[in-house]
Amino acid sequence: MPIAKAYSATSSTSGLHAATIERREPTPTDVEIKILYCGVCHSDLHQARNEWKDFMPTMYPCVPGHEIVGRVTRVGSAVTRFKAGDIAAVGCLVDSCHECEACKSSDEMYCAKGAAFTYNSPDPYTGKHTWGGYSESIVVNETFALKVPEGLDPAGAAPLLCAGITTYSPLRHWNVQAGQKVGVVGLGGLGHMAVKLAAAMGAEVVLFTTSANKVEDGKRLGATSVVISKDPEQMKPHTGSFDFILDTVSAEHDINGYIQLLKRNGTMCLVGVPEKPLPIMSIGLIFGRKQLAGSLIGGTAETQEMLDFCGKHGIVSDIELIPIQKINEAYDRLTKSDVKYRFVIDMASLAAD
Amino acid sequence: MPIAKAYSATSSTSGLHAATIERREPTPTDVEIKILYCGVCHSDLHQARNEWKDFMPTMYPCVPGHEIVGRVTRVGSAVTRFKAGDIAAVGCLVDSCHECEACKSSDEMYCAKGAAFTYNSPDPYTGKHTWGGYSESIVVNETFALKVPEGLDPAGAAPLLCAGITTYSPLRHWNVQAGQKVGVVGLGGLGHMAVKLAAAMGAEVVLFTTSANKVEDGKRLGATSVVISKDPEQMKPHTGSFDFILDTVSAEHDINGYIQLLKRNGTMCLVGVPEKPLPIMSIGLIFGRKQLAGSLIGGTAETQEMLDFCGKHGIVSDIELIPIQKINEAYDRLTKSDVKYRFVIDMASLAAD
Repeated sequence: MPIAKAYSATSSTSGLHAATIERREPTPTDVEIKILYCGVCHSDLHQARNEWKDFMPTMYPCVPGHEIVGRVTRVGSAVTRFKAGDIAAVGCLVDSCHECEACKSSDEMYCAKGAAFTYNSPDPYTGKHTWGGYSESIVVNETFALKVPEGLDPAGAAPLLCAGITTYSPLRHWNVQAGQKVGVVGLGGLGHMAVKLAAAMGAEVVLFTTSANKVEDGKRLGATSVVISKDPEQMKPHTGSFDFILDTVSAEHDINGYIQLLKRNGTMCLVGVPEKPLPIMSIGLIFGRKQLAGSLIGGTAETQEMLDFCGKHGIVSDIELIPIQKINEAYDRLTKSDVKYRFVIDMASLAAD
Repeated sequence: MPIAKAYSATSSTSGLHAATIERREPTPTDVEIKILYCGVCHSDLHQARNEWKDFMPTMYPCVPGHEIVGRVTRVGSAVTRFKAGDIAAVGCLVDSCHECEACKSSDEMYCAKGAAFTYNSPDPYTGKHTWGGYSESIVVNETFALKVPEGLDPAGAAPLLCAGITTYSPLRHWNVQAGQKVGVVGLGGLGHMAVKLAAAMGAEVVLFTTSANKVEDGKRLGATSVVISKDPEQMKPHTGSFDFILDTVSAEHDINGYIQLLKRNGTMCLVGVPEKPLPIMSIGLIFGRKQLAGSLIGGTAETQEMLDFCGKHGIVSDIELIPIQKINEAYDRLTKSDVKYRFVIDMASLAAD
């Protein structure tokens, strides 16, 4: 099997270091991609450090990375959508059963048999487990390769594959329309994409943040107004006014106050995974028939739709480009939210190892 | 103003005792009803005892009762839908602004200016507060009077006005269809109506209860199967299989296990108000894009639709008829869930006081 350079964690405390991994020979339906850029998602850090041990324990060695943009190097004989030389992307998914109701609806992330995630899933091809984008190359079934619209900066486009689709999918699923009032909670990697996307959909976007120093940035990114969520006087005027609120925060926080801000029949959707359960007052949902929902990334068709939408609106992530050798430092800064708003690894730097 | 006999609580610990209250002279748009039967809802007890003091403190004297069936005695000059002698019903609402978006959608329970509930709401007509159905008569705006289909036992129909509509409305709002799999959590006043209604809609109904002695009753009421929710072995086979789950339980209970039982895009709706917040794991909502919602009673148009549906399907509540003099005893039994499944007061008994 082809060998690829990569960065992997060998235990929860090892940090990431240079390694080599095997990639499969492309099957007739596969696309082989030389990775140019890979975004750094907070999930990468959780997985590398085995912080999700209770529900998704880490299989080591762990090669994170699921915000992948690269150039196609080889395609299998049955591949129709890609040819060598194309710019292609891979997100959080690399396979699924293709047969269940979810897969048939292109909701592959909810595959009844369990989707294969880009890293840390059993890999039937190798008998080991999947390895992600902190590597030289990746081989995926054509269904899970996406086209990156021309004109989008490929480095800035990489985070669209997770941060972008994770926020785009719920905005679309709950049918956000131009003129609606949409709240975005938290201004990190996900939140800054949510603000850009909801604004491009024509919504009136209100950003909720705990940091007064994010007000200007929130507005620059497209928010109509920014509310300091710790201040009840700023929260109160928004009571009962939101069609939809997207909560991107993974830290512990009180969400009952946000439910109060929804209109009748409004929905608040969580995309973050706080470690502890969130205490919910049922009466907040009952008065106004409100909904608290969750949403996980997005399927292949919707991810392509999101990329096309971003191509049309010129939307990419705000990024800080780093060489792979700085990944451990980047993780440390990530835990302090010290990034505006996404680290992206320039994979050309792998050559230096 | 006309005087009516009633039973009222004068403090959180007084219990209920005979009293008299004033009712208004019917305005041109009002209907005056001599009350024949009034159901006993757990909310009556909460309100009488001021157990909701944090969000809905009780105004004394308190006359509970919002499951009212009676005979029209007088109608105002502009009333078109009722005449003296008709059987009419009143539920949890007696007025609203008639002008906001919610009222225009006949979602009067979510009136932006605050609906007038049948008891314990400010009453602009008297300058006092509203008094409910544990009384001889009531006067309401025609919009808030409902028609009881012929052929329904009026005593058994009384609980439809709260227990019925509270469960019917979410089943309809989340579009329960024949052939779908619907869960009902808890077999009390609300739960037993939910089972009957969902079964009549053609759903496959699974009842969840903690009491092994409710299995037979659950099946008699229309459940296809009954699951003892404390038993993980009974819960597990239902994972990912429900289109909709209606949770009628007001006691503290873990709902994360039920969220696991929902299908992709499934909704669990709460209609009970546990005292403490419910701890929710966001990941349970995220995997499968599930929704946790709440729902409050129902509007006037939907309440009429529910009564007509019950008329068509011959659905009434399973009741235990009591004289008003037994109301304090009934409350004590209610706290022990010792009723199958709703006490209804025979208001003719008021004459004895």
